[in-house]
Amino acid sequence: MTKKSVKMQLQCPIPKLDFNVITLGHGSGGVLTNKLLDSGVFDILSNPILNERHDGAFLKMEGEMAFSTDSFLVSPIFFPGGNIGELAVNGTVNDLAVCGAIPKYLSLSFIIEEGLKMTEFWEVLVAIKYACDKANVKVVTGDTKVVEKGKGDKIFINTSGIGSIHPKANISEKNIKAGDKIIVSGNIATHGMAIMSVREGLEFDSTIESDTTNLNHTILNLINTFGKDIHLLTDPTRGGVGTVLKEIALSTNIGIDIFQKDLPIDNQVASACELLGLDPLYVANEGLFLSFVDATVSDKFLEALQKDENGIHAKIIGTVVNTHPKQVILESAIGGKRVVSMLPGEQLPRIC
Amino acid sequence: MTKKSVKMQLQCPIPKLDFNVITLGHGSGGVLTNKLLDSGVFDILSNPILNERHDGAFLKMEGEMAFSTDSFLVSPIFFPGGNIGELAVNGTVNDLAVCGAIPKYLSLSFIIEEGLKMTEFWEVLVAIKYACDKANVKVVTGDTKVVEKGKGDKIFINTSGIGSIHPKANISEKNIKAGDKIIVSGNIATHGMAIMSVREGLEFDSTIESDTTNLNHTILNLINTFGKDIHLLTDPTRGGVGTVLKEIALSTNIGIDIFQKDLPIDNQVASACELLGLDPLYVANEGLFLSFVDATVSDKFLEALQKDENGIHAKIIGTVVNTHPKQVILESAIGGKRVVSMLPGEQLPRIC
Repeated sequence: MTKKSVKMQLQCPIPKLDFNVITLGHGSGGVLTNKLLDSGVFDILSNPILNERHDGAFLKMEGEMAFSTDSFLVSPIFFPGGNIGELAVNGTVNDLAVCGAIPKYLSLSFIIEEGLKMTEFWEVLVAIKYACDKANVKVVTGDTKVVEKGKGDKIFINTSGIGSIHPKANISEKNIKAGDKIIVSGNIATHGMAIMSVREGLEFDSTIESDTTNLNHTILNLINTFGKDIHLLTDPTRGGVGTVLKEIALSTNIGIDIFQKDLPIDNQVASACELLGLDPLYVANEGLFLSFVDATVSDKFLEALQKDENGIHAKIIGTVVNTHPKQVILESAIGGKRVVSMLPGEQLPRIC
Repeated sequence: MTKKSVKMQLQCPIPKLDFNVITLGHGSGGVLTNKLLDSGVFDILSNPILNERHDGAFLKMEGEMAFSTDSFLVSPIFFPGGNIGELAVNGTVNDLAVCGAIPKYLSLSFIIEEGLKMTEFWEVLVAIKYACDKANVKVVTGDTKVVEKGKGDKIFINTSGIGSIHPKANISEKNIKAGDKIIVSGNIATHGMAIMSVREGLEFDSTIESDTTNLNHTILNLINTFGKDIHLLTDPTRGGVGTVLKEIALSTNIGIDIFQKDLPIDNQVASACELLGLDPLYVANEGLFLSFVDATVSDKFLEALQKDENGIHAKIIGTVVNTHPKQVILESAIGGKRVVSMLPGEQLPRIC
């Protein structure tokens, strides 16, 4: 358990219950489901919209919106730097933010494997609350289902989210043009290697912690300053930076040059990748985003990003070019060039 | 396979693929995920918003909205009358409709167990498309994850949905008052017993088919005609009619009287319940909703509902009363009375 999660748990002590584990009955929709929800789930996530407890939430929204969904199956559910609860909130919050949206409302759907300990469920729930508060979003509607032992894996969480498009945002692949600078907001491959280090029992001088965090405040500050000069934002989660860049090159018909020496990576993460024979370009990230910005503002954008707590390690890693449409070319530290394709198989299952 | 699903599959032949089963790699976010999505998923669900393929969907909405989520884990995934795909669409569509909303947009998130046959995935996908078209909703954003064999069960689906509140709707528990009539839109316990009959190998003269369907057109027609005289709508899925009525009585502090002789139920469904020792009041429903309407319009409401294909078996089953707050009382066919509580344990796991 990380310091952060200990702190969170102390602030929200688990209520006294007459059950210690979640059973099939807690997913029945009857007495036990109500008992579980009333044990503290509604209290901890309380807000006027959720408290209505209807089949759906009633909201007021105006103008352009973004809508996103993600299911989270990370294994193990507790890992250095976080747990599946905050991952589920941050993942959807960040998907909305890279659309140029101010995240507002989340749905929260649990698929729980029979036998999950209430202490584990509670720790996940507290992390959800913590992440929602930090991102300034509200859980307004939800669902709780339970599957038999051996038909799930502790807990899967789906979050879907709604946000209002920031008035200055104009995020679209269509806006990318030759000359645009590509900026990564921090060290790559951190989340994936935090999970893999636990699974593989790797030990380093200090633990590799997941970088899971909400990026919406960081991103919306940048949109507020740089507006339409930010052409595209995306978060390179599954598949990593390499896959996402290749997808963008393919779908927009542009070329991308990136430079290995500029790719920021933590030393221990780099060592872990080497030990496991993994290319950090394909390792999943969480608290990280890529920006395609107009070359005229790229230095100022980088400077602003580096002043943000989520952008200390930000770097310009590449450029959009006309010369090799649909291709991503990596120039290595010693000057050689190689073609970057998408992650070919399944490198790291159950990473998010 | 039902006649309906055969027909659907014929209309959308499975594309030629170089894989027959879904593997972990199809959830990697890399080459194989793209291959799976490009194999026909995007084609079959195609619409301009989804086709943008960004981290979230861009939408325009004005005014009041409803937002709902549900995860579907039904076992078996194919059952008489439907499959998990249409259940997942109809479930969220109906949750929105009982909020008084016109369902518009869905998110679609798959959690697939490694080894699912592509033919099975395809049949589910075709059913999703069919149900979306019937309900006039669009899938605008999605997610596909794969878990290892034995960590899931074929396929789980989460849908979340957004709808615009109908201008004449005013659906809230707060509107219920003594004298209101309670109307059920059709035969109860059908969906639950369709699933249970398959699981238990029960055989009848004809197969019990699930009543899964979209109710939004039916409900919105009623709202259009009866407006604010419809005080509350709800769909009694998990937990059944009994649990939902008890929840409403508890949270609104009103009393409810219902009459067993007025509860519509199919003969075979009633026999199946008897054989398995199940009380139909607690068996899950799908294509069914409960309406609390002002007594002044209840007869006309019933008449209008009975003319709709989803309301042929509709009946007034009870009344809101002042005499026993928080209590639901069932008057039996022979005149005795009993207190209806919520479903106490887990009667039928994995029913939706």
